[in-house]
Amino acid sequence: MSTAGKVIKCKAAVAWEPCKPLTIEEIEVAPPKAHEVRVKIISSGICGSDNSALNGIIATKFPVILGHEAIGVVESIGQGVTIVKPGDKVIPLFVPQCGSCRSCKTANCNLCEKFEFGFSALSGVMADGTTRFTCKGKPIYHYASTSTFTEYTVLSDICIAKVNCHAPVEVCLIGCGFATGYGGAVNTAKVTKGSTCAVFGLGGVGFSAIAGCKDAGASRIIGVGTHKDKYPKAMQLGATECINPKDYNKPVHEVICEMTNGGVDFAIECAGRIDTMMTALQSTYLSNGVAVILGVASPADTLNLSPGLLLTGRSLKGSIFGAWKGRDCSNNNLDRSTFSFCAVG
Amino acid sequence: MSTAGKVIKCKAAVAWEPCKPLTIEEIEVAPPKAHEVRVKIISSGICGSDNSALNGIIATKFPVILGHEAIGVVESIGQGVTIVKPGDKVIPLFVPQCGSCRSCKTANCNLCEKFEFGFSALSGVMADGTTRFTCKGKPIYHYASTSTFTEYTVLSDICIAKVNCHAPVEVCLIGCGFATGYGGAVNTAKVTKGSTCAVFGLGGVGFSAIAGCKDAGASRIIGVGTHKDKYPKAMQLGATECINPKDYNKPVHEVICEMTNGGVDFAIECAGRIDTMMTALQSTYLSNGVAVILGVASPADTLNLSPGLLLTGRSLKGSIFGAWKGRDCSNNNLDRSTFSFCAVG
Repeated sequence: MSTAGKVIKCKAAVAWEPCKPLTIEEIEVAPPKAHEVRVKIISSGICGSDNSALNGIIATKFPVILGHEAIGVVESIGQGVTIVKPGDKVIPLFVPQCGSCRSCKTANCNLCEKFEFGFSALSGVMADGTTRFTCKGKPIYHYASTSTFTEYTVLSDICIAKVNCHAPVEVCLIGCGFATGYGGAVNTAKVTKGSTCAVFGLGGVGFSAIAGCKDAGASRIIGVGTHKDKYPKAMQLGATECINPKDYNKPVHEVICEMTNGGVDFAIECAGRIDTMMTALQSTYLSNGVAVILGVASPADTLNLSPGLLLTGRSLKGSIFGAWKGRDCSNNNLDRSTFSFCAVG
Repeated sequence: MSTAGKVIKCKAAVAWEPCKPLTIEEIEVAPPKAHEVRVKIISSGICGSDNSALNGIIATKFPVILGHEAIGVVESIGQGVTIVKPGDKVIPLFVPQCGSCRSCKTANCNLCEKFEFGFSALSGVMADGTTRFTCKGKPIYHYASTSTFTEYTVLSDICIAKVNCHAPVEVCLIGCGFATGYGGAVNTAKVTKGSTCAVFGLGGVGFSAIAGCKDAGASRIIGVGTHKDKYPKAMQLGATECINPKDYNKPVHEVICEMTNGGVDFAIECAGRIDTMMTALQSTYLSNGVAVILGVASPADTLNLSPGLLLTGRSLKGSIFGAWKGRDCSNNNLDRSTFSFCAVG
């Protein structure tokens, strides 16, 4: 029996208040309104940013359903939705692509002006100002336009990318971590063939950045992390060596500069720590080094850097969601097989 | 009668100690040693960095002959010099091009590892550890590998670029200000056709950046400065409008963002002020803005910025001498007529 047009009761992990464990609750999920899509979540990753929201580092309204890295199947669509139909396999996009703002209309931009995530208080509601979730009679807020820690969620149709119907559950990682790290290397750093790279932070984003550096043809990829149990995976994905800052009695940027005749060409920060961002910048060659920030620091943190570090020729940049335009890229407009293996087509 | 091989007595402006006026003195200029060139200076510009050295902001040894933006004629050459001969018209290069270091061998680098300028105490001496200048029996230090506030100076042959024999005296500006500003726009910012730009600081570097933005095809170039008497020259060189931060009761980056539908594509800082660097970054569009630092701040100054400003997609970068490789570019390897109008050939 079709559930379209009806309220769905299902399980979700609800964050009732900051810094407290999520609890599994039965919630009600309202049908999608115009230009909205209700999606049955198949799998969801857990990202550091979810934890940051729970801990109050990213300003979020409570109670809330967190989660933004998932894959699912369209259950039903609201009026005016044309890009997907029930049964389509989809990835929720925490970076929308409205198609009409300055960013969407500009080739090298991906941060759609409908984006809301982490830099000011999130609205927690859909475009009409209301939420589609309730639990125990109370409205539950949305998170990062996605809210994937639930069996069913409702998304704006600008926050959804159709993917190949055979995409496996692991493809949820394209919803954030993989896209962020891989795109950070190939789109933001623009790693070049034969270059030297350092990737700071060996989690999902860092692993994906390593894969991006490898695919871009880097000749040397130094993984930097304090958890040695991550090294085998880093090496498997393309790192040529891994180092632990704790193994040295000097700053790790000095170690890297000595290892690389003055610094790497590209340094990618995937830890979301201010000190690591500075280390990444200082690990690059003074005359053309490119340091890329992918990790999300607390909005209260500031980078305190001498402009002389940049004046010599370095660049410091960053990106969200790996600078991909979510809907375009999922529609196979890119030929990078690693990213588009799940793409429509 | 040839002066080659002899000590030359001439006039120079000597800075005997920090923060005191220069005095015109008779000095002795020793002949060039191996791989050195003695040059008769025709004209020399005065750059803000000379003032910074005099005021102790750039660590410099005293007594010193300042100046680094000049044009001159080769008087004599030391052993082993092959790139110029007596009578050649030349520009001293405060950024050397040794040709053999990592930076010189890399296409997108210009900061030769023999460079010494402003970021730590300058050595003030030639490669053999001695100076070629004396005055009243005392050795006088060199400055920034150039020392052009004198009728004669001695340069390393890696710090010299041959230029067209018909180059007029104004070409001295290519020795610093023009190259820095114009190259900052075309090489560092890589201003694109149809883009919007803001240039902060309407002095020689800023004017040159405006010319670079114009030649790169920018559709809108906003000059930002507090001295309205500079506006006509800025407009003549390519600015489409000029604004004075003092005319507004809100931060000028907000004014610029409102004027440009969210921010300029490229912002170029030519004032050497920390607050202007922050303003430049904040004046760029959040999703792909590029802010370029060309001005030299005090080494004690730090930029305190939220990494969120970069994480959205902005870039912050910088360059010295406009990212030009001094010897290659003067040898007509570039087809930009504005830069190479004085080039050999």
